[in-house]
Amino acid sequence: MISVVLLGAGNVATHLFKAFKTNSDVSVIQWYNRTLNSITSYQNEVAITDNINHLADADVYILAVSDDAIARLSSKIPYEDKLVVHISGSINVYDLDKKHKRGVLYPLQTFSKEATIDFTEVPICIETIDKACYPILKTLAKALGGPTKRVNSNQRRVLHLAAVYVNNFTNQLYRIGHEITESEGAEFDLLKPLILETAKKIQNMSPYMAQTGPAKRHDKKTISAHLKLLKNEQHKDIYNLLTDSIQKTHGS
Amino acid sequence: MISVVLLGAGNVATHLFKAFKTNSDVSVIQWYNRTLNSITSYQNEVAITDNINHLADADVYILAVSDDAIARLSSKIPYEDKLVVHISGSINVYDLDKKHKRGVLYPLQTFSKEATIDFTEVPICIETIDKACYPILKTLAKALGGPTKRVNSNQRRVLHLAAVYVNNFTNQLYRIGHEITESEGAEFDLLKPLILETAKKIQNMSPYMAQTGPAKRHDKKTISAHLKLLKNEQHKDIYNLLTDSIQKTHGS
Repeated sequence: MISVVLLGAGNVATHLFKAFKTNSDVSVIQWYNRTLNSITSYQNEVAITDNINHLADADVYILAVSDDAIARLSSKIPYEDKLVVHISGSINVYDLDKKHKRGVLYPLQTFSKEATIDFTEVPICIETIDKACYPILKTLAKALGGPTKRVNSNQRRVLHLAAVYVNNFTNQLYRIGHEITESEGAEFDLLKPLILETAKKIQNMSPYMAQTGPAKRHDKKTISAHLKLLKNEQHKDIYNLLTDSIQKTHGS
Repeated sequence: MISVVLLGAGNVATHLFKAFKTNSDVSVIQWYNRTLNSITSYQNEVAITDNINHLADADVYILAVSDDAIARLSSKIPYEDKLVVHISGSINVYDLDKKHKRGVLYPLQTFSKEATIDFTEVPICIETIDKACYPILKTLAKALGGPTKRVNSNQRRVLHLAAVYVNNFTNQLYRIGHEITESEGAEFDLLKPLILETAKKIQNMSPYMAQTGPAKRHDKKTISAHLKLLKNEQHKDIYNLLTDSIQKTHGS
């Protein structure tokens, strides 16, 4: 049984706490947050504290805090040579205080407090400096129930970067679709099955093979009709840039 | 029972034929294509022809052909005052020859020959010039099994435009994610659950509410680290433009 102290009370921390709760290989023995009120509702399930000097002696300390807080908080953990991990896609593993054994458990998923997360669908990318720490990180990652993958720093960095494209930027394209349809009193809801199918399609087909539409077909008539319809200059810029990108990918 | 002659043998035509086959309100009595070989495999199920002058007398003619072929083909149908519909998102209903009653059945979905389509998940947008034709178009659309929605020309046009953003452009972002991960030997497959979750999230939440990430957080450190990682100039342009778009949407 691996004992864990969880630090932080944001979306991911809460999701992690709930996921570990259901697993018998891992026990969250204490939950720390700098303000107690966000975790008091869990005080019957786990010891809670807002005093970093009162952290319990545990096998692993998981820093589920904002990127900016990771380095400072890791230095304040009142132990040495403990396994300390953060869960960020973008922060260097060496940013953790060097008095610790250091690692990263990066869950490649989007978390909102409202949406419950099924961790069996979340790949956990494992990074470690000291090879000897890998088995315990692997056990923690597997305890969450989804696929696990060992990565190096570069791979984690590019996965995080690629995640911005396929998640944040994609979501902004949905937002633009929303604005465009609403502006003419059309229903954005009609696009939802298409959005889902677009995401499903590439589960078994490369995005290259899955591409369709006027840009790929070099259908100048439709492209210029679309540009005429667009009133927002930035929407036009996005249309032109992504059309060009598709045409570069698919040749002329 | 509505009798239908189907014209064209592309992805959508084939999917339509299969969907109508299972319905008892609609009977496809003939399938036309300018070259027979793409439809000969169906000759035991339906009469086929490559001679436009031999088109059967039917209630409705469905032009499931490329945008460029719609106007010319509609003028060659050797009947008058028949209900003739196309299925394109971008072509004007008035482009159909005016000797006919005219309409549009626009399925808002992405079609590839490889992927089978569940029409119960495909909204059909119905447009008609003559109100009297609406009931028969509605019956045809409902026969496909999914939601149906009456739209006007403007609404259909913006739905098609928005579909390019949420489908083609989104798919290109997946492609860029693929390129970025492969370039560092990371696995694109690790991003697939995130891609699916991003699409699922907005089924019950607005894209505005669903947004997360460094652009929305104005996390300058992460943004500049990402820009440094990007080697492809166009990928950088896309990163900058969509980051700016997110920040315009979410204020500063």
